[in-house]
Amino acid sequence: MQTETMTSEAHSLIASDRVEGTPVRRANGEKVGTIERLMVDKISGNIAYAVLSFGGFLGMGQRHLPVPWARLSYDRGLHAYRLDLMDEGLRGAPSGAPDTDFDWGDRRREIEIHTYYRAPNYWDV
Amino acid sequence: MQTETMTSEAHSLIASDRVEGTPVRRANGEKVGTIERLMVDKISGNIAYAVLSFGGFLGMGQRHLPVPWARLSYDRGLHAYRLDLMDEGLRGAPSGAPDTDFDWGDRRREIEIHTYYRAPNYWDV
Repeated sequence: MQTETMTSEAHSLIASDRVEGTPVRRANGEKVGTIERLMVDKISGNIAYAVLSFGGFLGMGQRHLPVPWARLSYDRGLHAYRLDLMDEGLRGAPSGAPDTDFDWGDRRREIEIHTYYRAPNYWDV
Repeated sequence: MQTETMTSEAHSLIASDRVEGTPVRRANGEKVGTIERLMVDKISGNIAYAVLSFGGFLGMGQRHLPVPWARLSYDRGLHAYRLDLMDEGLRGAPSGAPDTDFDWGDRRREIEIHTYYRAPNYWDV
């Protein structure tokens, strides 16, 4: 057991192509959605968003929600990223139209997202 | 022209699954290698490394080199990430054995990499 713990501590890195497709869970282990991809700030190399997909279980069709990375936390117990947001919160969250990509060129939309999730703007950090 | 410049400025984000597979070039446009994946620090969300693959053109077989992210710069002119390192530099760079993955659990190896590339340790930044 000791060894296992040490190994998992040491491996604090994860490959981008392993993050893609992993589930995001609530504290109780419930699955919220799946990480489709990460949005990376080209210049700083910081991750700005995780784009989460929801397989239509909220009755809204397939939607992609950009969630500020700062709102996800890695939970070593769950071995998953955690987002504590209920279904109601997800329904109201900013997103592109169903089955379309979010328009990343619009800073006003980005401010809207960060305000919604009460996350610090990644470009100010 | 004005509009084009503004658009490309605005889109400062790039999707992780679009970074994977993109070429890395020298200032003169020469291709150095291809980004296989990004290694993400689970907790901070900073990109620690780009893992570059080289299709054996250096006569060393297929190798994966972890390059500190801080050593890559995004070149708006080239529309590519830039790494100014000659073939000799790549030959001597720390890597796993051919066709194996790098062992990410060993901090001493990570220090070796950062020393080699003269990059600040991502865990100290």
